[in-house]
Amino acid sequence: MRKYLAEMIGTMVLVLMGCGSAVFAGSAADTVGAGVGTLGVALAFGLSVVAMAYTIGSISGCHINPAITLGVWMSGRMNSKDATMYMIFQVLGAIIGSFILSLLVSSGGFDGPTATGSNTFDPSETGQAFIAEAVFTFIFVLVVLGSTDEKGGAGNLAGLAIGLTLVLIHIVCIPITGTSVNPARSIGPALLEGGQALSQLWLFIVAPFVGAACSALVWKFFAAGRK
Amino acid sequence: MRKYLAEMIGTMVLVLMGCGSAVFAGSAADTVGAGVGTLGVALAFGLSVVAMAYTIGSISGCHINPAITLGVWMSGRMNSKDATMYMIFQVLGAIIGSFILSLLVSSGGFDGPTATGSNTFDPSETGQAFIAEAVFTFIFVLVVLGSTDEKGGAGNLAGLAIGLTLVLIHIVCIPITGTSVNPARSIGPALLEGGQALSQLWLFIVAPFVGAACSALVWKFFAAGRK
Amino acid sequence: MRKYLAEMIGTMVLVLMGCGSAVFAGSAADTVGAGVGTLGVALAFGLSVVAMAYTIGSISGCHINPAITLGVWMSGRMNSKDATMYMIFQVLGAIIGSFILSLLVSSGGFDGPTATGSNTFDPSETGQAFIAEAVFTFIFVLVVLGSTDEKGGAGNLAGLAIGLTLVLIHIVCIPITGTSVNPARSIGPALLEGGQALSQLWLFIVAPFVGAACSALVWKFFAAGRK
Amino acid sequence: MRKYLAEMIGTMVLVLMGCGSAVFAGSAADTVGAGVGTLGVALAFGLSVVAMAYTIGSISGCHINPAITLGVWMSGRMNSKDATMYMIFQVLGAIIGSFILSLLVSSGGFDGPTATGSNTFDPSETGQAFIAEAVFTFIFVLVVLGSTDEKGGAGNLAGLAIGLTLVLIHIVCIPITGTSVNPARSIGPALLEGGQALSQLWLFIVAPFVGAACSALVWKFFAAGRK
Repeated sequence: MRKYLAEMIGTMVLVLMGCGSAVFAGSAADTVGAGVGTLGVALAFGLSVVAMAYTIGSISGCHINPAITLGVWMSGRMNSKDATMYMIFQVLGAIIGSFILSLLVSSGGFDGPTATGSNTFDPSETGQAFIAEAVFTFIFVLVVLGSTDEKGGAGNLAGLAIGLTLVLIHIVCIPITGTSVNPARSIGPALLEGGQALSQLWLFIVAPFVGAACSALVWKFFAAGRK
Repeated sequence: MRKYLAEMIGTMVLVLMGCGSAVFAGSAADTVGAGVGTLGVALAFGLSVVAMAYTIGSISGCHINPAITLGVWMSGRMNSKDATMYMIFQVLGAIIGSFILSLLVSSGGFDGPTATGSNTFDPSETGQAFIAEAVFTFIFVLVVLGSTDEKGGAGNLAGLAIGLTLVLIHIVCIPITGTSVNPARSIGPALLEGGQALSQLWLFIVAPFVGAACSALVWKFFAAGRK
Repeated sequence: MRKYLAEMIGTMVLVLMGCGSAVFAGSAADTVGAGVGTLGVALAFGLSVVAMAYTIGSISGCHINPAITLGVWMSGRMNSKDATMYMIFQVLGAIIGSFILSLLVSSGGFDGPTATGSNTFDPSETGQAFIAEAVFTFIFVLVVLGSTDEKGGAGNLAGLAIGLTLVLIHIVCIPITGTSVNPARSIGPALLEGGQALSQLWLFIVAPFVGAACSALVWKFFAAGRK
Repeated sequence: MRKYLAEMIGTMVLVLMGCGSAVFAGSAADTVGAGVGTLGVALAFGLSVVAMAYTIGSISGCHINPAITLGVWMSGRMNSKDATMYMIFQVLGAIIGSFILSLLVSSGGFDGPTATGSNTFDPSETGQAFIAEAVFTFIFVLVVLGSTDEKGGAGNLAGLAIGLTLVLIHIVCIPITGTSVNPARSIGPALLEGGQALSQLWLFIVAPFVGAACSALVWKFFAAGRK
């Protein structure tokens, strides 16, 4: 049970801080200088992973992303019951994170271009959004599987490498979909926001899962060569 | 005594460099390009922690934050006398840091939106400020307790993980309160600036302590599962 | 064969993400704030190296750059057949990366100043471009050879150090040539874009190879002193 | 001799890349987006230290800064002959770095606010400049001495911690003096530029040495407590 709760808190932090940076980014212009912009939001998502990896990593492995859990499960590193529970608690955590964020927004001013940090895309560009989410999740989960490999992985540095990879993916993908590569991260804000965020939610579940499944197959091929 | 002085110097550096980046950020526009903005101030606070963690970490543990000291003390990792002395010397260090900064400001030009880097908030948004400071300190101290845990912590990487977490928190929270999550960091500038910074100071002491106490309870639960 | 495919995937990721950040950087302004700019593109290239180093590093060593392969081969750390195959698969990977990027661009909107992320320079400044690419590749490959040295290298941190060095080189060199220091990274976009990118391609092959050859000689001198 | 040449190359890279980022930062606006600005220049100087620390660290210790050499020598970690030679070769390397940069500038366009990256200050604010350079060098060299301490230092992470500290110092100090904290880094550009950069050069030699001497004394006190 403790590991499920760890996943819940970890995903809560990811959604609260990552989406929170997008929500409050705009009003930053009034206080210190320019808003944090794309780069700041990218750092917020990636550093949330770094923060949680070194906090709950030894408890649950810090997936905080159903696509990662799918990839890890397909790689035979966890059983089906744990995988299911991980995903459920990740979604719960994301909803809690979105709820705390909405509490912050409703209790004071904010000035960003979004109130929830939800993922959306131009309906005429669904193909671009699908390719982007699938390909970038493939890269992300491949890094997760490779850097946490028992033989030849990144050891203690895995959390940092994975977090910085998420920064990288956000830098490229924020202009396209806002960047999900994580179904839980999209479900939380979509439930609170409704509308387009909810009607487009399917893509941010299907595409990341497709990408993660490819990662598991590709990594199986690479890992097989390592005796 | 050496560890108390280490805490004093560490907190001095945090306040001088973190608040200093906010003070001098504005005039940067004239010299090289855009000012460092929110992201630069966020990095300044976080990298101050990285710098001090690898310098005085082996002497005092590098808390340089009374909220962290509260969390560590509640987790039973230090005695009451040390905890009290740590907090006193942290506040002393913060005051010295603010004093050096005011010396720099008074001896030449500066062009930022603040002369001390103090924490304030719109009085009509006290609720938002309190929630933000309590929740973000909860996350920050949870990362500190988790990543410095003897079993399963981040080992040598803890200082980096904690510093990057402080960058993350500033990215999200600078637009709300300027970001404290550290009573000492707020006390220093408030004493020099007075006015609103002083009358609102209570929030930057109470809210971080509330958040840190929650971290200690939550981490106790997680750590108990690790035999 | 596995290590060749690893080089192919690694170079694909580098070109897709690095060039992709330049392609999509412009349109970011509409969604969250300012575009990622030079710093964001610099981070994208460098963090791609970090991501791949900790994923395929134990499989192929993660060169993903023919100039690095030349330097490693000249240092006697790999045989001629592997060096040739590495370079071929790196170029293949770069072409695949550019192709996926063009697929993304053609399936939806983008708003950056470039559609491929190709390297070009003002024809009247060929000398500047050549010096820059040669000198910066010299520095880059010197860091690679030094930090991966068996005695006294950076150990597990090499991937991070090398990636951050590539960030550094892009910060300085993007205004000059867009930064190659990697023939494969230039070949992919040039083949898709044609025109000036193709007619200037020779420089982004010759100059990096000249720089890398110098690194191998200089590092041989330093390494000889370490018994 | 090898270690002296390593110091020369390391300082050359620091000056070429750090000052180069300031020189070329301006024209970046035309190619990808906003120029790198203060944050980009800060990263360039800091990441140059990271790059060199993991390349020549095992050869010379990678001081690449006469103020660091002074602090290390005062701490009794190196003999007087080596300290003198280190400083001479650091200055030589800085001059070579400035020369390569001037070669790059003269062979093509650039558009930054400076052609050499020299350190200067408003003559009416000499006091501010002196305090800033002395205090920030004190902090910088304290981090160097602490994180490279044999007992309780940062181990393999020292290079990263020191480089990130230099990023931090530049964020705060670029608006004041452009940031030296390193006499060699100021001598190179001043010799090429002359004028104010040369007439104010004394401050960027004296103030950093004063700060570094204080670091050595303070660290001696802390280290004495560690048996």
